Amino acid sequence: MIDEMTMRIRADELIRAALAEDVTNEDVSTACVLSGKQLGEAELICKQDGVIAGLPVFARTFELLDKEVRVQFFAKDGDRVLRGQKLATVRGDMRAILTGERTALNFLQRMSGIATYTAEIVRLLEGSSLKLVDTRKTTPNMRIFEKYAVRVGGAGNHRYNLSDAVLLKDNHIGAAGGVRQAVARAKAYAPFTMKIEVETETLDMVRDAVEAGADIIMLDNMTAEDMREAVRLIGGRAVVEISGNVTKESVSRLKEIGADVVSCGALTHSAPILDVSLKNLHPVR
Amino acid sequence: MIDEMTMRIRADELIRAALAEDVTNEDVSTACVLSGKQLGEAELICKQDGVIAGLPVFARTFELLDKEVRVQFFAKDGDRVLRGQKLATVRGDMRAILTGERTALNFLQRMSGIATYTAEIVRLLEGSSLKLVDTRKTTPNMRIFEKYAVRVGGAGNHRYNLSDAVLLKDNHIGAAGGVRQAVARAKAYAPFTMKIEVETETLDMVRDAVEAGADIIMLDNMTAEDMREAVRLIGGRAVVEISGNVTKESVSRLKEIGADVVSCGALTHSAPILDVSLKNLHPVR
Amino acid sequence: MIDEMTMRIRADELIRAALAEDVTNEDVSTACVLSGKQLGEAELICKQDGVIAGLPVFARTFELLDKEVRVQFFAKDGDRVLRGQKLATVRGDMRAILTGERTALNFLQRMSGIATYTAEIVRLLEGSSLKLVDTRKTTPNMRIFEKYAVRVGGAGNHRYNLSDAVLLKDNHIGAAGGVRQAVARAKAYAPFTMKIEVETETLDMVRDAVEAGADIIMLDNMTAEDMREAVRLIGGRAVVEISGNVTKESVSRLKEIGADVVSCGALTHSAPILDVSLKNLHPVR
Amino acid sequence: MIDEMTMRIRADELIRAALAEDVTNEDVSTACVLSGKQLGEAELICKQDGVIAGLPVFARTFELLDKEVRVQFFAKDGDRVLRGQKLATVRGDMRAILTGERTALNFLQRMSGIATYTAEIVRLLEGSSLKLVDTRKTTPNMRIFEKYAVRVGGAGNHRYNLSDAVLLKDNHIGAAGGVRQAVARAKAYAPFTMKIEVETETLDMVRDAVEAGADIIMLDNMTAEDMREAVRLIGGRAVVEISGNVTKESVSRLKEIGADVVSCGALTHSAPILDVSLKNLHPVR
Amino acid sequence: MIDEMTMRIRADELIRAALAEDVTNEDVSTACVLSGKQLGEAELICKQDGVIAGLPVFARTFELLDKEVRVQFFAKDGDRVLRGQKLATVRGDMRAILTGERTALNFLQRMSGIATYTAEIVRLLEGSSLKLVDTRKTTPNMRIFEKYAVRVGGAGNHRYNLSDAVLLKDNHIGAAGGVRQAVARAKAYAPFTMKIEVETETLDMVRDAVEAGADIIMLDNMTAEDMREAVRLIGGRAVVEISGNVTKESVSRLKEIGADVVSCGALTHSAPILDVSLKNLHPVR
Amino acid sequence: MIDEMTMRIRADELIRAALAEDVTNEDVSTACVLSGKQLGEAELICKQDGVIAGLPVFARTFELLDKEVRVQFFAKDGDRVLRGQKLATVRGDMRAILTGERTALNFLQRMSGIATYTAEIVRLLEGSSLKLVDTRKTTPNMRIFEKYAVRVGGAGNHRYNLSDAVLLKDNHIGAAGGVRQAVARAKAYAPFTMKIEVETETLDMVRDAVEAGADIIMLDNMTAEDMREAVRLIGGRAVVEISGNVTKESVSRLKEIGADVVSCGALTHSAPILDVSLKNLHPVR
Repeated sequence: MIDEMTMRIRADELIRAALAEDVTNEDVSTACVLSGKQLGEAELICKQDGVIAGLPVFARTFELLDKEVRVQFFAKDGDRVLRGQKLATVRGDMRAILTGERTALNFLQRMSGIATYTAEIVRLLEGSSLKLVDTRKTTPNMRIFEKYAVRVGGAGNHRYNLSDAVLLKDNHIGAAGGVRQAVARAKAYAPFTMKIEVETETLDMVRDAVEAGADIIMLDNMTAEDMREAVRLIGGRAVVEISGNVTKESVSRLKEIGADVVSCGALTHSAPILDVSLKNLHPVR
Repeated sequence: MIDEMTMRIRADELIRAALAEDVTNEDVSTACVLSGKQLGEAELICKQDGVIAGLPVFARTFELLDKEVRVQFFAKDGDRVLRGQKLATVRGDMRAILTGERTALNFLQRMSGIATYTAEIVRLLEGSSLKLVDTRKTTPNMRIFEKYAVRVGGAGNHRYNLSDAVLLKDNHIGAAGGVRQAVARAKAYAPFTMKIEVETETLDMVRDAVEAGADIIMLDNMTAEDMREAVRLIGGRAVVEISGNVTKESVSRLKEIGADVVSCGALTHSAPILDVSLKNLHPVR
Repeated sequence: MIDEMTMRIRADELIRAALAEDVTNEDVSTACVLSGKQLGEAELICKQDGVIAGLPVFARTFELLDKEVRVQFFAKDGDRVLRGQKLATVRGDMRAILTGERTALNFLQRMSGIATYTAEIVRLLEGSSLKLVDTRKTTPNMRIFEKYAVRVGGAGNHRYNLSDAVLLKDNHIGAAGGVRQAVARAKAYAPFTMKIEVETETLDMVRDAVEAGADIIMLDNMTAEDMREAVRLIGGRAVVEISGNVTKESVSRLKEIGADVVSCGALTHSAPILDVSLKNLHPVR
Repeated sequence: MIDEMTMRIRADELIRAALAEDVTNEDVSTACVLSGKQLGEAELICKQDGVIAGLPVFARTFELLDKEVRVQFFAKDGDRVLRGQKLATVRGDMRAILTGERTALNFLQRMSGIATYTAEIVRLLEGSSLKLVDTRKTTPNMRIFEKYAVRVGGAGNHRYNLSDAVLLKDNHIGAAGGVRQAVARAKAYAPFTMKIEVETETLDMVRDAVEAGADIIMLDNMTAEDMREAVRLIGGRAVVEISGNVTKESVSRLKEIGADVVSCGALTHSAPILDVSLKNLHPVR
Repeated sequence: MIDEMTMRIRADELIRAALAEDVTNEDVSTACVLSGKQLGEAELICKQDGVIAGLPVFARTFELLDKEVRVQFFAKDGDRVLRGQKLATVRGDMRAILTGERTALNFLQRMSGIATYTAEIVRLLEGSSLKLVDTRKTTPNMRIFEKYAVRVGGAGNHRYNLSDAVLLKDNHIGAAGGVRQAVARAKAYAPFTMKIEVETETLDMVRDAVEAGADIIMLDNMTAEDMREAVRLIGGRAVVEISGNVTKESVSRLKEIGADVVSCGALTHSAPILDVSLKNLHPVR
Repeated sequence: MIDEMTMRIRADELIRAALAEDVTNEDVSTACVLSGKQLGEAELICKQDGVIAGLPVFARTFELLDKEVRVQFFAKDGDRVLRGQKLATVRGDMRAILTGERTALNFLQRMSGIATYTAEIVRLLEGSSLKLVDTRKTTPNMRIFEKYAVRVGGAGNHRYNLSDAVLLKDNHIGAAGGVRQAVARAKAYAPFTMKIEVETETLDMVRDAVEAGADIIMLDNMTAEDMREAVRLIGGRAVVEISGNVTKESVSRLKEIGADVVSCGALTHSAPILDVSLKNLHPVR
């Protein structure tokens, strides 16, 4: 979650870097026409139906420019929003509003795009116990925002990064000399607080993984039939994750497999933005 | 361009930050199975047809982990690549290859996705003098990579950020009291090395902008008829830019307007990734 | 401009670095005599006639040490100030005033020195349409402050850095194979939002540049006669910039050339400081 | 000293920041005309007589852009150099030479300007035992370079910053309740490894300072007569420093006072640059 | 593990910061006596018996000062070392050796102190299946080094930080309204890749935790009798961790409880250093 | 001293880094049970007798997470505190209290451990004029906190780092060719504001050092007899420092030597923590 504490510890530096990316020395267009402080107000308007995510980041972008900017929200992260809906008003120094606008919207649009796309797939899974989760296929330096947006969209998160869970893929298994050896090494090496997941491609690998005591078993690019057999083999002794190219088309078929979790890179790597816009900036008072 | 110099001045810190985002303290899975240096080699394989972009960033990611990793390329940025094509081999310490893989691919996939999408729209404009350019609707902290990918895809760049050109939008014009006043203020304030662009919504605004001496006039959400009339009014005295929601469907119609440039936010905010993958990691020697 | 937004995005980190440069672990002299908070007030006094620049940076230095320091100004950036004039009072924790004093003054003195020197040369150009501008010959990591001070002194800015305009110098022209080729390559490569300037040394180069469509033509170390001829040749088709060693002695002669702009490195690289001092610190309440 | 170790610990980050100040995303002019690596060589030529300082910083600037740039020197820091003299050749990727040129020269010119100005004043003091030193009136974020340049010019350094020596000024003395009290507090508080200096304005203050055991006594804006009396009073029990507005005109008179040290802010705050230039870049091989 | 990749991603910046902490502008003592490069060699000698940890960090400290320093090791991390034993020779520029010495030793001594202390407690647990682990009671900004040293000493790591496992303490349980509610919320909220640990103080809490499905149950300050009963209640359905003030005196008694893991803050917060020293620096060649 | 100014210039970034070390993306346990702001209060309780140090750092840790956290103190740095004593209450958003708790305590416990250990040794020296000081044997990136804790414990500081005093050790003396030469070089090279200390191992070295004009002479591992003779030889012409392995056992014997200062690495490298704990967090209002 990007709560107020996380914002300060982690998000602030990324938001500041994004502002610096957009301003080498000054917002020259704004400086041309506004030479001093001028109080103004603008409206945040949704231009497409979707799920909104990132409102605190949107507000924080302006606050980092000018502590006195006030954002009043009429929606909150996770709300379904409609084309034309007013989501917030931004009030403060018009120069801060103009200078921060694009950066604030770039965060909000991308995060809301991910939440919207995620919510669509979550809806397809309704009525099933299969839980949708993301992957590490995120945009560099945007992971904290993108994984949060996935949660806002109703799905869950897979591991955050390479340091918080063991995931033994084909290359790790190859290096260890087999599934059993890889799991044994992980049990010996990894902190006892960490779960161990194994990526499997065959039923033999599944069998080895479950017997070696893997906590999570990922079925990678198996046929539906093999996946069903794998679930039967595992018999509740490990969490079952399905991976592969999950699309709107394929996801409903996956519901029948009996797996626990389905992971989907597209949530973060291929969602288009949700169009949101700052409108009607006008001086006040 | 992300050349070798820019890489050091600007890209390195972003790549390092992306690696740190993926590694809190260690790549625990790799550490479980590889306790020391083990030379290996993997292949970079394209999994979709498209235009590749970001190969130097891909290679640099591994170099920042281990100076001795060597990447041999069989393609270069801007090449059309095909599903199944081998783009490169990566040779070095298998631990570095495993730890850097996801970050390197996250850069490459996103940049190639943008180049591929851009190239598709560029192709639609073939036979016209209309030049496609990007916008500032980029992913936060990814602008240098995304604007480069747009160029690799065959389009051009609009201004890089708020500091390198004047773009007077409705809010700036409102604050100044009209188009003529806004342009006059910009001529007085902005460095003489900078171009001045005005966003116009009506033919009256176009007339004012051209007479005030704007260098570039953007036609925002006008009808095709109005745009053609605007081009006639401007008569070569300023560069004409078309903006708005440019899509594959609409872009071919825009070719007939007679404008010079068309800008498109979707190039950077809504392109899906190009799927590229690191395969067949194996020990060597 | 260093407005409130730019201060936060760019200047704050430079001011903080300057404070850290002056304090490794503590201001030991102040800690010897003041062991706790003690409210005090001091006066900012001008010790030479000149043009003041950098007052917001001066104030910000103290604010970054202690949010409760209040600076009340009796002058503003750009004002002509006189020896003995009181420019401001600084009120707050005496420890913050003592610790921040030198850093705050180092900024203010240097910026005011540049503004003062610039204003002198601007005055020499009075009655002419020739506009004085600066160069990139700034002190490393001080550009944002120094280019701002040049504006405060009444002159304009040339490009901010290597990324916001094209300036083709002899080496670029040599690499391209001639003026025409260099301009053609720049038109093909550079964003359409960017102006293209060519540095010329002969009338032939001027002719080539203007015909190739350069936006700005710099006349480098030409005789007065050649410069006049160049202006005639260009005939308003490009902005004409004069460069070279501009001094108080030479600048008035340049007024007769008919050029638009004269650039001068000395504004930022050789202006002495304006002496300003913090006086009469005393406890209050 | 800026030796190789200090360069890595402290100077590198400042040089990198200066390069980033000059390149937002790319050196667009160079990228227009050079699309790949092209080996070249240029000459570093002195354009004024003076004392050169900063050659290692000059070289390091290019190295940070491209490890393969090689700078061959024909002079070393501290050498008196003459107009027209060739100081070095720079060989490497022409793009790195063009992109780094201005930043490298901005360091070298400023540092050499300070060394040259310092050397002039040192020469005026020849034949006297009075030692010239600098102050903390340096350009923000340039202190390490400027204090080094002062040494190269033949003078010495006063304390580096607020943390490495005690200097009790009028405000500290006022806060403590007098010279004796201030020195006593400093002896109690400051690390025993640190010297204690007192700024005095009257002979009574001098008497108090020497009796309280100050290590260094600064005579601030006293008459020549008072200074001579102060030296007599101190009688070798403390180092005597003269301060105030030291100029070429006044400095020779100070030689007669009998003081040990004279400090001069102008060395770092008002020295004009020494003009140095990169010439004759040409492709090689 | 601090392997070569982790060193670059995470440790380098901490080592550089430590060097900068020790060098404001120069190592003045070394600069007094060595004005240029002088090749030398020194020996790393152990001055107490113990377990060595941090040799790669020791070497890296010198490398970051001077790439050409070569450290040849005669021991490796985890080795038991004896008073008087030569652990390594350091060869390179004597200035780099002198400047880096203290920082390199400060890392090595502290890490080896932790490894030595850890190994002592591990030895006390020999013959038992109880596994010793650390806590988050580490020195600020030293966690990566200290947790590594714990492993080198033969113990394991508990979670790395607040983000990689759920640990529900009394305050979390209170906020949720009870153990069952807290675990239920954690199952709903936390990524499925994460284990959930509950801190319990009574047997009722143990019962609730195991029934709610906690992965790990910590017994906090229970009597030996209660702990044995807790182990019986849990019956292998969760990992059992003992916490509290583990000392050399108490630890052997804990072996009889039947728990899986015992955590000990003293490993990182109270281990004295292992004395290691750089000796016999002499010029070579 | 870590006063409010030093906190902002130097400590804040280290505290922020420590928080980031403990939070990769979120405090997952707290986020599980508290989804929004909930005002609460906790008590800071001392669990061992000792000397408290670091209370402002403790408070600042929470403030950096949430400006509205208020810490009310019932003790101040340097106070002797008793087991069970309430030192402060922390009131604010319970999420901030839970997330910041460990980092705040890690600072406070370590600093108080050093102050407590220092105070014990200071007490052993009571009745003697021998002053206890620390060394540079501090934990990397903790020096500002640890040297402050030493002062709070009643001892003094030796030099802060390699840049603020000259300390000529055996290797420096060897490189210079002897004590006299080393001191002479230091007098020529080092700023006149800096003291020069010499480390001596024999009475001959002591004699040379005092005659060469060293300000401080360190007696390194001499016999008590030699140390007494050294003090006699020096005769007040330099400060006398004793070094070596100072322990509680040996320190009282050192009182008889007649030296001025005794330095002790163990103060910072081997003090165990003082146990302090945050208790009884409960919702308020």
